[in-house]
Amino acid sequence: MLNQTFASMLNEKDVIFEIFQYAQDKAKIVGAENILDFSLGNPSVPAPVSVNDTIKSIVDTCPPLALHGYSPNRGLPEVRAAMAEDLNRKFGTHYTMNNIFMTQGAAGALAHAFRAVAAPGDEIITFAPCFSEYKPYTAGAGLKLKVVPADISSFQINFDAFLGMLSPRTAAVLINSPNNPSGVVYSADTIKKLAGILEEKQLEYGHPIYLISDEPYRDIVFSGVDAPYPAAFYANTLTAYSFSKSISLPGERIGYLAVNPEAEDAGKIIEICPQISRTIGTNQTGTLMQRTVAEVCGDTADLSVYEKNEKLLYEALTSYGYECVEPDGTFYMFPKAPGGDAFAFCDKAKELNLMLVPGDIFYCPGHFRIAYCVPTERVERSLPVFKQLISM
Amino acid sequence: MLNQTFASMLNEKDVIFEIFQYAQDKAKIVGAENILDFSLGNPSVPAPVSVNDTIKSIVDTCPPLALHGYSPNRGLPEVRAAMAEDLNRKFGTHYTMNNIFMTQGAAGALAHAFRAVAAPGDEIITFAPCFSEYKPYTAGAGLKLKVVPADISSFQINFDAFLGMLSPRTAAVLINSPNNPSGVVYSADTIKKLAGILEEKQLEYGHPIYLISDEPYRDIVFSGVDAPYPAAFYANTLTAYSFSKSISLPGERIGYLAVNPEAEDAGKIIEICPQISRTIGTNQTGTLMQRTVAEVCGDTADLSVYEKNEKLLYEALTSYGYECVEPDGTFYMFPKAPGGDAFAFCDKAKELNLMLVPGDIFYCPGHFRIAYCVPTERVERSLPVFKQLISM
Repeated sequence: MLNQTFASMLNEKDVIFEIFQYAQDKAKIVGAENILDFSLGNPSVPAPVSVNDTIKSIVDTCPPLALHGYSPNRGLPEVRAAMAEDLNRKFGTHYTMNNIFMTQGAAGALAHAFRAVAAPGDEIITFAPCFSEYKPYTAGAGLKLKVVPADISSFQINFDAFLGMLSPRTAAVLINSPNNPSGVVYSADTIKKLAGILEEKQLEYGHPIYLISDEPYRDIVFSGVDAPYPAAFYANTLTAYSFSKSISLPGERIGYLAVNPEAEDAGKIIEICPQISRTIGTNQTGTLMQRTVAEVCGDTADLSVYEKNEKLLYEALTSYGYECVEPDGTFYMFPKAPGGDAFAFCDKAKELNLMLVPGDIFYCPGHFRIAYCVPTERVERSLPVFKQLISM
Repeated sequence: MLNQTFASMLNEKDVIFEIFQYAQDKAKIVGAENILDFSLGNPSVPAPVSVNDTIKSIVDTCPPLALHGYSPNRGLPEVRAAMAEDLNRKFGTHYTMNNIFMTQGAAGALAHAFRAVAAPGDEIITFAPCFSEYKPYTAGAGLKLKVVPADISSFQINFDAFLGMLSPRTAAVLINSPNNPSGVVYSADTIKKLAGILEEKQLEYGHPIYLISDEPYRDIVFSGVDAPYPAAFYANTLTAYSFSKSISLPGERIGYLAVNPEAEDAGKIIEICPQISRTIGTNQTGTLMQRTVAEVCGDTADLSVYEKNEKLLYEALTSYGYECVEPDGTFYMFPKAPGGDAFAFCDKAKELNLMLVPGDIFYCPGHFRIAYCVPTERVERSLPVFKQLISM
C-alpha cells in the first residue's frame, strides 16, 4: 500500500506551485511577456564563465577513471580541503578538511545536520519568517519544529518568545541569515545575544544545543552591510552552505556541511554523516561538480543585479506607502501586505498579472514576498502595478 | 546530543573497509603493485568517450540559465522521456516520462521506492546473497528487512524458504539480478514463479505486494545469457537503475526509478516521490549529468574486460577444485570458501596479499566474493595464489 504519510502531503496546498500554475495559464491568454513573475527564488544571472571553463578543463585533464569515479563517503579530500581554506580565508576560522562533509546543496547538509545532532522526538527551534521547507526537512528526521513568531519591526530575533519556547528537548536552533524571505541579515548583536542564551541553556539542560546555520545566501550581501559569520560567535555551530545562489548552480545540487572544529563532538559528527547517508540513499554528491566548486569557490556570479533591483523596488515601494524592513542581501523583500491579509493582497496582484507569495507560508502572515531575482526591466514594469495595488 | 542510532553504526564492523585498510597498510610494506585487490566493486574501465564529449557539448550549447538551473522535482522532462524511450526500445515496454523519476543512482531510487510503497513497521523480503547496504537502506525507512536464505546450488530463489517468510506485513519484495555478489541472472522461470506467488499473495492479503527490482548491473550480461526484464513479468514492479556500472559513472550519482505503467497506483507513486525527497534532503539530481545520460543512455563503457576476466577466473578456479556457480554477468563471482569458513579463508588470502570479501556480509556464509573489475593482468597474477590457497 502507498505510504500515507507521503501520499497525504499531496493534499497540502502548495501555494507557490499554484501561483506558478496560475501564471502559466494566464500567460497563454495575455502572453508570457506580460506576466510579472516574482514568485520563485531562481537565480536570474548565469554561473560565472569560470564554472564552465573549469568543467571542460577537468573533463580534459583529470585521469579517466578518477574523473567519474566514486567519491569517498565524506567527499573528495582535496575538495574538502578547498572548502575549509575558502572559509578560513573569508572568516578567519580554523576549519580543516576533517570538518567538512560534501552534500547535495544546503538541503542535503541540513538533512545530515538534523539527523546527526537530534533524535526522533527532539525539538528544533527556528525563527519566523523562515523557509517553508524546514517543516518537511525536520519532520523527515522525526523532529518537532517550533517556529518563534517574527519580530516584524526588524526581522531580527524575537527573544522573549524564543526564551519561552526553549526546553530540555531543544536539540538545535536553526537560523537563516541572510534570510529567505525577509532579506535581512542578523546583526552581530543578535547573534551574540543568541549565543549567550544558548551557552546558558546548555549548562542548565546539561547537554549541547547546536546552532544550525543555513547559509545559501551568505554571498549575496549588499554594499555597506556587515554580515557576521555565526560560527565565529558560538562553538557548537554547524554551517550548511550551497553553491546554488552564489554561483548560480541550483540545478547541480552541490554544497557542504561545515562543523566548527570547536564544537562538542565535532569529529564524531563528521564521522556519522556518512552513516546517515546510508539510510537516506545519498551516497555523496557528483565528483565532477565537487572538483568544479573546489576550483571556483572564490568566485561568484555577477550578483550586482540583485542589489540594483532591491534599491529600485525599495525606494519605489516605500514612496508609494508600503511598509518594509529594507533587505541587507539575498534577492527577497518582505513588505507588509496593505490591508493586512496577504492572501487577499496577492490575489489582487495576480489579477493584475503580478505574482507574489503570501507570507503565511513563511510563518509570517500579513506580509508578502517579492523574489526580485529577475531582469531589472521586469522590476521597472512592476512598479506602476505596485502603485495601483496600494490604492485599490 | 548525538543521535545514538547513527553513532552506534560506527561500532559495527565494516568488513570491506577493514580489508581496504589492511591492503593500504600492506602496500606500504610490499608495494602497491604486489597487492591483488579484488575487494571493491568499482568499475575498472573508464566512461565511454561519448560521455565527456557530451558534457562539453552541453556546456557549450545549452542556454546559460537552463544549463545549471533547477530541475523540476521529478527530473527534466526531456531526460525522463529519453529514459522511457530507452527502456521501451530495449524491453518492448510502454513507459512514458510520467513513469520515470530521476534519482541519485540506484541508492536514491531505492530510498524513494521503499518509502513510497511501504510504511514504518512494514516488511521487505529479499534474497541471499545480497548487497549488504539493503539493511541500512530499509532501516532508514523504518522497515524490517527479511532475508531469504540462499539456494547455494544455483543462486536462483529458495522458494520454500520464501513462502515461509511472506506475511500480510510484506509490502515489497526486493530482487537484484544480475546479482551482487553471485553474478547470477534470475532466469525467466525464476521470475515467472516469483510473479505467480506474488499475484496469489496479493489476492490473499488484499493489498499489493510491489516488486522492487534493483538493476545497476542490467547492462553487464555475458554473451549467450538471456537476462529477462522483471517488470515485463509482474505489473507491480518498480525498477531502480543506475548509470554507475554500465557507463562507469559511479561518482556522478545518476540513475532513476521507473514505475511500471501497469502497476497499481503507478501515477501516484511518481507523484509522491518528490514529497519523499522533501523529507530526506534530496531535491533532484544534477542537471548537467541528467542531460548527459539522456544523450548517452544507449551507450556502454567497454565492458568486455569483465567477461574476459570472468572466463579466465572461472576456468582456472574450477580447474583447481573451487566450487562455483558460474556468473552470467556483473563483475562478481561467489565461490564456496574451501574449508567452509569464509572469514578464515579470506584471512589466509590476505596474508598472501589477495583481497577477497567473506560472503557473510552478503547474508551467505561459506562463500567469498571476487570483484574482478580489475585489469586482466591482475587476474592472471592472482591465479597461482588461488591455486596455493586451495591446497593450504
